[in-house]
Order: sequence, then C-alpha cells, then structure tokens
Amino acid sequence: MLREWKEPDRPEEEELRARLAAAREKLAGQQMQVKERKVPVLVLVEGWGTAGKGFLIGQTIQNIDPRFFKVASMDEPTEEERRKPFLCRHFAKIPEAGKFMFLDSGWMDEVVKGRLRGHMTDEEYATRIESIRRFERQLTDNGYLVMKFFLHISKKEQAKRIEQLSGEKDTKWRVGKNDLWQNEHYDKCRDVFSSYMKNTNMPSAPWYIIDAKSKKWTELQVLEILTQGIDIALGNRDMAVPLLQNVFPLEKVPLLCDIPLDKTIDDEKYKKELKQLQQRLGELHNRLYRKKVPVIIAYEGWDAAGKGGNIKRITGALDPRGYEVHPIASPEPHEKARHYLWRFWTRLPKTGHIAIFDRTWYGRVMVERLEGFCSENDWMRAYNEINEFEKELHDWGAVIIKFWVQIDKDTQLARFNDRQNTPEKQWKITEEDWRNREKWDLYEEAVNEMIQKTSTVYAPWHILESVDKKYARIKALQIVIEELEKALA
Amino acid sequence: MLREWKEPDRPEEEELRARLAAAREKLAGQQMQVKERKVPVLVLVEGWGTAGKGFLIGQTIQNIDPRFFKVASMDEPTEEERRKPFLCRHFAKIPEAGKFMFLDSGWMDEVVKGRLRGHMTDEEYATRIESIRRFERQLTDNGYLVMKFFLHISKKEQAKRIEQLSGEKDTKWRVGKNDLWQNEHYDKCRDVFSSYMKNTNMPSAPWYIIDAKSKKWTELQVLEILTQGIDIALGNRDMAVPLLQNVFPLEKVPLLCDIPLDKTIDDEKYKKELKQLQQRLGELHNRLYRKKVPVIIAYEGWDAAGKGGNIKRITGALDPRGYEVHPIASPEPHEKARHYLWRFWTRLPKTGHIAIFDRTWYGRVMVERLEGFCSENDWMRAYNEINEFEKELHDWGAVIIKFWVQIDKDTQLARFNDRQNTPEKQWKITEEDWRNREKWDLYEEAVNEMIQKTSTVYAPWHILESVDKKYARIKALQIVIEELEKALA
Repeated sequence: MLREWKEPDRPEEEELRARLAAAREKLAGQQMQVKERKVPVLVLVEGWGTAGKGFLIGQTIQNIDPRFFKVASMDEPTEEERRKPFLCRHFAKIPEAGKFMFLDSGWMDEVVKGRLRGHMTDEEYATRIESIRRFERQLTDNGYLVMKFFLHISKKEQAKRIEQLSGEKDTKWRVGKNDLWQNEHYDKCRDVFSSYMKNTNMPSAPWYIIDAKSKKWTELQVLEILTQGIDIALGNRDMAVPLLQNVFPLEKVPLLCDIPLDKTIDDEKYKKELKQLQQRLGELHNRLYRKKVPVIIAYEGWDAAGKGGNIKRITGALDPRGYEVHPIASPEPHEKARHYLWRFWTRLPKTGHIAIFDRTWYGRVMVERLEGFCSENDWMRAYNEINEFEKELHDWGAVIIKFWVQIDKDTQLARFNDRQNTPEKQWKITEEDWRNREKWDLYEEAVNEMIQKTSTVYAPWHILESVDKKYARIKALQIVIEELEKALA
Repeated sequence: MLREWKEPDRPEEEELRARLAAAREKLAGQQMQVKERKVPVLVLVEGWGTAGKGFLIGQTIQNIDPRFFKVASMDEPTEEERRKPFLCRHFAKIPEAGKFMFLDSGWMDEVVKGRLRGHMTDEEYATRIESIRRFERQLTDNGYLVMKFFLHISKKEQAKRIEQLSGEKDTKWRVGKNDLWQNEHYDKCRDVFSSYMKNTNMPSAPWYIIDAKSKKWTELQVLEILTQGIDIALGNRDMAVPLLQNVFPLEKVPLLCDIPLDKTIDDEKYKKELKQLQQRLGELHNRLYRKKVPVIIAYEGWDAAGKGGNIKRITGALDPRGYEVHPIASPEPHEKARHYLWRFWTRLPKTGHIAIFDRTWYGRVMVERLEGFCSENDWMRAYNEINEFEKELHDWGAVIIKFWVQIDKDTQLARFNDRQNTPEKQWKITEEDWRNREKWDLYEEAVNEMIQKTSTVYAPWHILESVDKKYARIKALQIVIEELEKALA
C-alpha cells in the first residue's frame, strides 16, 4: 500500500490552522458521546521510527479529559510477556466501553520486526496475520471502534530527522538502533510494512496512511479521520461503514478556479485540424477493434458546457458498428433499486468497442451528494469505490478517458439565455438547469473534490476548456488519439 | 476450510421435518420485511458437481413469492461475456432492493475452474481474489445481504451420484464432464475450493459450508442460515453482525441426557488411586515446568456438582509456585466494560504454569445467554469466538483441558438440602442457586449446544460423572495426566 500511496495536498498554513482548530474542537465534543454511548475506541498509531508517533498521541489527548483515555507504549515484549501468547499483552490493553486507548505501536510493530529481522518464517508470519485478523474482527464485531494509523515519511526525511536528533545532546537518546536499521533498510521495510497493511486492511478496521512530514499536518489528518470514524461508530445504527482510504496512485490536477479559460482556436485552423484528427481517430478505431482494446470515454461538465457537440466530433470519426453513446439521466426505478454502479457495469463495452458516457458514475459525488439522494457516508465512500471500479476496468485492459468540460458562470448564463430565446434550442433548457445554476458554488466545491480524489494515474481527469467549444473539441480529439496510441503501442 | 470442516449432526427425521417446516415458514414470513425494508438479498450457491445446487434453489424459492426473487444459472461465460471484464456478468445479476437473487454458482466457480485447469497463473488468481473481495465488500458496504453457501459432499458420495445419474436414461444428461473431472481430481479440487473460500471469507460475507448428503438436510441447513442472515440484515441498525461458521474440526460428544451417571468407585480403590495419580501428576508438573508447557484447565458444571472438591484434588498434587486457581464470578465493572474474553486473556498462565479456571469464558453461552446479559447475536457469535480463542492458545502451545462436571437434578436437590441444613455449609448455597435450578432445562439445552459447538479436536470437552464425586476426581486426574503425558511426549 505504501508504494501506491500518494502524498495528499497539505493545505496552506491558514487553512490548516482553521481546520485543526475545528477538528480539535470536534474531538473534544465527541468524547461525551463516546462515553454516553459506551463506544470503546482503540487508536493504534504505527509508523516509521522518528515519524512522530509519541508527539502525535501527546497532541491528540490534549482534547480529551484524562478520565476518558489511556496511553500505552508497546515496547519489545518483556521476558514475562514472551511467556504468554503473542496477543496477550495487546488484548490486555483494549479500552473500556466509553473510553479511548492510544497505543504507541502495537501488534503490527511486533510482527513486522519479527519478519524483517528474519526471526519469523513465512508460515509463522501467516499464522500471525490470521491471529491479528481474527483479533481485530472480534473487536469490531463486539462494537469496538478500531482506528489504525500509519505515520509515513520518506527515506530522506527519516535520515534528516535521525541526523538532527543525533546532533543534539538532549535529543540524542531518542534515536534508537531500530531507527538507524530502518533507514539503512528503508526499501525492505517499506515492502514489509506495505504487505502487512494490505494483509490486515479489514473492511471494518481499515488502515489510514498519514503523511507525517510536519507535526501539525500529521495531527490534522489523524484528527479528521479519527473524528470521522467516531461519527460512524456513533451513527452505526444507520449502517454507516468505515471509509477506506484511497490506495491508488493519484495525479495532481489543478482546481477549477485556477484553469485559464481564454484558450481559443481560429475557424480555419479548427476545420483543418478537425479533419486531420478525425481521420486519424478513424484509423485508430479500426486498429483497436482488431486488437480488441476496449475504450471508455466519460464526459462530465457544467450544463451547456458543450458536451453534446464535443461527443459528436468524436463519434463523427468512428465506425457506428464499433461504438455506443450512453446518455445518463436520473436512474430508472429498476436502476435506483440497485448498487449505483450497476447501470454502468451493465453498459460496459466489449473488447474492441468504445463506450462514450454522456454523464457518468460521478453523479454519485455530484448531484446525488448535493441533492441528498444518498447519505454522506455513501458519497464519501464513493471516491474509493469509483477508483476501485476504474481500476477493475484498467486491469481488464480498458483505456479510460475522463473529460471535465469546463466553462465559467457567465458563459453558462449567456448560453442559457440563448437557448431560452431560440425556439429550436428551447428543449435543451429546463427549470432544473436554472436550479442547478443557483448551486454553482456548491457544485464547484464537489467537482474539485471529485477531481482531486479520483484522478488516478490509470484514469486521470482531463479538463476541456470549453468557452471556445471548438478549442475543446480539438483538445478532446487530441487526447483521445494520444491515449489510444499509447494503448496500441 | 474444507479439510477442517466437520459434518454437523443430522437431526432425526421427525425433528428435521419440524425444523424444516419452521424454517420455510420463517422465510415466507421474512419476504415482506425484506421488501419493505428494501434489503437486496444475494444468495450464492456454490459446491461440488452433483451436490444438488439446482434442486436446493428450486426448493428454497417455493417459499417466496415469484415477484420477489430471480434465479440465474451462471454457466461458462459466453464469447460475448468473455469480451467484458470478469466481474461484469456477475455484477449484472445483483438483486434489486427488497428482492432475492439466487445464483446457481457464480464468480467462485469461474475462478476455481480457471485455477484448476491451469488457465490462470498465481498472479492472475491473486488479482481475481482482490477483485472479488472488493466486489463483495462494495455490496455489503452498500447494504446488500450476501449469503454464500458451499454444498459439500465426499468423493465417495459424488462418485455414487455420478454412477446413479449416468445409469438412467432420463438423468444421464445431468452428469457433465466437469463432474467427472472433479471426482477424478477430488483432492486437488478440495484444496483449491478450500483456499478460495479462505481467501474470500469476509467478516461481512462469510462462507457457509453445507453438508449436502441428503436433500432435506441440505435445505434445512441453508434455510436456517439464510433466515438467520436475513434477521441480521433486518436488525442491522442494532449492530448485529453475520455469524461466522465454525471452521475448526469438532469432536462428537454425547448429549447430557445420554450420559449414564451410575459410575462409582469404592473407598479403598479411591484412596489408592488418588495417591498414585497425584504423585504422577506432581512429577509431570515438574517436567512441564522445565519444558515450559502452559496448561489451562477449565471447569464448568452444575451448581453443587463438586467442582471445588475436584479442583482441590488436582491442586493437591501441584507445586504452589507453578499454578493458580481463578474463581470466576460475575464480572467486575471494569471487566464488564470490556470484551468478554478480556478477563481471561489477562489471566492466562505463562509458559510452564498451570491456570485452573473455576467457571470460565463459557459463561457467555450459558448464564449470559439465559439471563439476557448479552444479545442473541452476541452469544451465537460466541461459539466461534471461543473456538478462535482456544485455537490461539493451542497454537501457542498450551494444553487445554475442559471439564463439564455432570450430576442429575435429584442429586443437586439432595446436595442443596444438605447445604441448607448443615450450618458450616450454608455459605455455599444462595437464593441464586435455587433460581438457576428452576431453569435447569433451559441450561441443559444451552450446555448441550455449547458442548456440541465447542468440542474442537484441540480443546475437547470431557464429561466428569460426579454423582459419585470420588469417581469424578479420579477421572479428572486421569484425564489431566493423560493430556500432559501426550504434550510432554
């Protein structure tokens, strides 16, 4: 999991401070509910040496009344502890109902050390994993909230910290042999940590990898995830489930407001390029048909951004026997009655074919989110579910191209008015479009979050600047061609 | 999982009929709740060729209104289906909210076939398992009830059926090439099935292995588990979780009512044997101390059955530095606030020591069950949790000896009266003892279920017939000695 993990964006200092204050306050507010509802909360903090586990716990507990929490530091087992079953000292530390227990490393640390140092055979390791999976499942089955954090730093960062700590008399003692050993064998450690986390990433007790590069940022991530987990535990009568952290590598995409929309193309150039590109796309279509490569092109964008016309320029180049366009409206009753991805699973192209989706499964995190058609837990869970869905398609061999067709608010207004005032375009504008327009800012926020969280390296978002629709069409064609060429190479 | 699996006891014909009628009625009654609460129910029926998957589904759906269910038979993928992602045709079959979908084999069948026939590399197999785990998790995360059954028959039984079916003109067509292939490669198939089920035994969607030796018995097991699963799904606002099926090999133990209690020992023989056995036990205690073998002796039994005196005869032989007796009363507040196994995890002996528990973790499925101190889901889940707990101890190297001290109701009454009427014994009898006595029959039922479900080969129950307490003491000493000798051999 660590290899795929991508550093999340650290917010600016001001935002960070504000969110941290809010998260601390939230945790402080939750403690009484945890107490009243008798939820036992086990917080396991694992991670690299010098990643700041102790400091993080120290910060976190400042928000909780001392009567409601305990902290335990699980060192190497003592001679006495070695004479008990492996899980014994860990089981002994589970919290009481209504209280928090913070563990500064625990059973993970013990097992990965055994594996790294070669004390543990593969078979012993497999037995340990089974034990741990059972242990954690028994806890969550019995109503425990189990939050597992892994504080992650890079090899370089760890080396830097070791040097800094070693350099000063007061902090020298804090660098242990294990820290040095880890840094020396960083890649090996990372792989063992990774596979341990993969093996124990339980639906009811998932792992959260934390970017531990700076103290406040670490605290913020942990507090936000922890308080979310507590919310879920407090609300679990409504079947909320823990959110799995994204484990797929992400690509950085700009915020919508940072995208310049002044790009244009002149008519002559447009005509010439359109012709050339469509011809090229047509050739590629034949080749991917023969090579049986399936292609999925997904369009999302503002109302009146020009999705329809853009799609037309793609399909204009294609052999009608080899593609299908799926316009996605609100789900029919039989679709609404099933998992929200069902109507997309059942519309996938076969190998060698192209499926173009005019609106997509991203409705879950846009309209369904904003209109309250699903619960908060549902749409928050959906980012990872969608990444998993697209990963499945990618692994199958599909080329996945996702377009966000972008315009500004004024352009939309102009186009809406044009539609309203042109009889043959009036069918294209409805009351709903105007209502959605009123929620522009909320949508923009949701779209930004969606793009950040689902731009995986195997299925990144492409932005089509569509104030000049022609510019957007050419760009779309170019991207499709480029992606197909890559796949056919 | 198939290797460890133990055939459950098939009830007598009369009981079977009664339970089957009840289970059918229950399912018929649940369908409207499933509909109203909009729970989608996916029933996956996998198993050996000729195990009777189709027949089972045919029987089951007779209890459900045709508007509320669908059945799909997943054969080899068609050419068209092969050109879609692996999960596509399976995802397409998921039920609508409030309805049942019965699948006559599905993704398991497809994957294990690929593996058995060598079409699938280990890496491809691992990828498939990942996909399936995600798929099933996405379903249960989104509120689907996913019930997975595996119909199990022995190699011999399968061969017999193949022969029978092949022998008649009308049924010949029902024997496929795959059935023959399976029977020829039975052991290999069993291992592949087993590891598939182990790999996909999710807490939220566990596997249920069904003894498919006879049709009605198969139907009964499936209906009882299915209706239980539906109950859990309907009640999941109260955090009920699916019951994991026991996967540990069990030993057959008689019902309490079938145990003759007329065994006695004469005084002279008792004294002689007691002395010899205690001396032997003392020697063994020294040896296991040196060899660092941990020993756990658990006593359960009726009030006034003679547990205390029995324990005294064991401890009388032991070096006080090497053992501890833990009398288990109702949990203290700090114990009640934790997982019910916590107070036992924290009382385990270290290696080389003996821990004797006077009453045990089995309180969960006796007093806690009968007095309503835990929910039905809690105590039903506990059989497997306890087997897991004892497996953990066994794997650690512990010798586990569990005694049920048995007397009849009349003997108890006589002893209660004796205690009541003998001043120096009065402390031993309380109001609670009399109250428990009134529930004798309920306790007997619970104890029978407990003994049947937790007599694992690594931690079987031993019955001590204790109408003659001396007989029971000698028998206990003999068993302890025998078990220790085995462990030290």
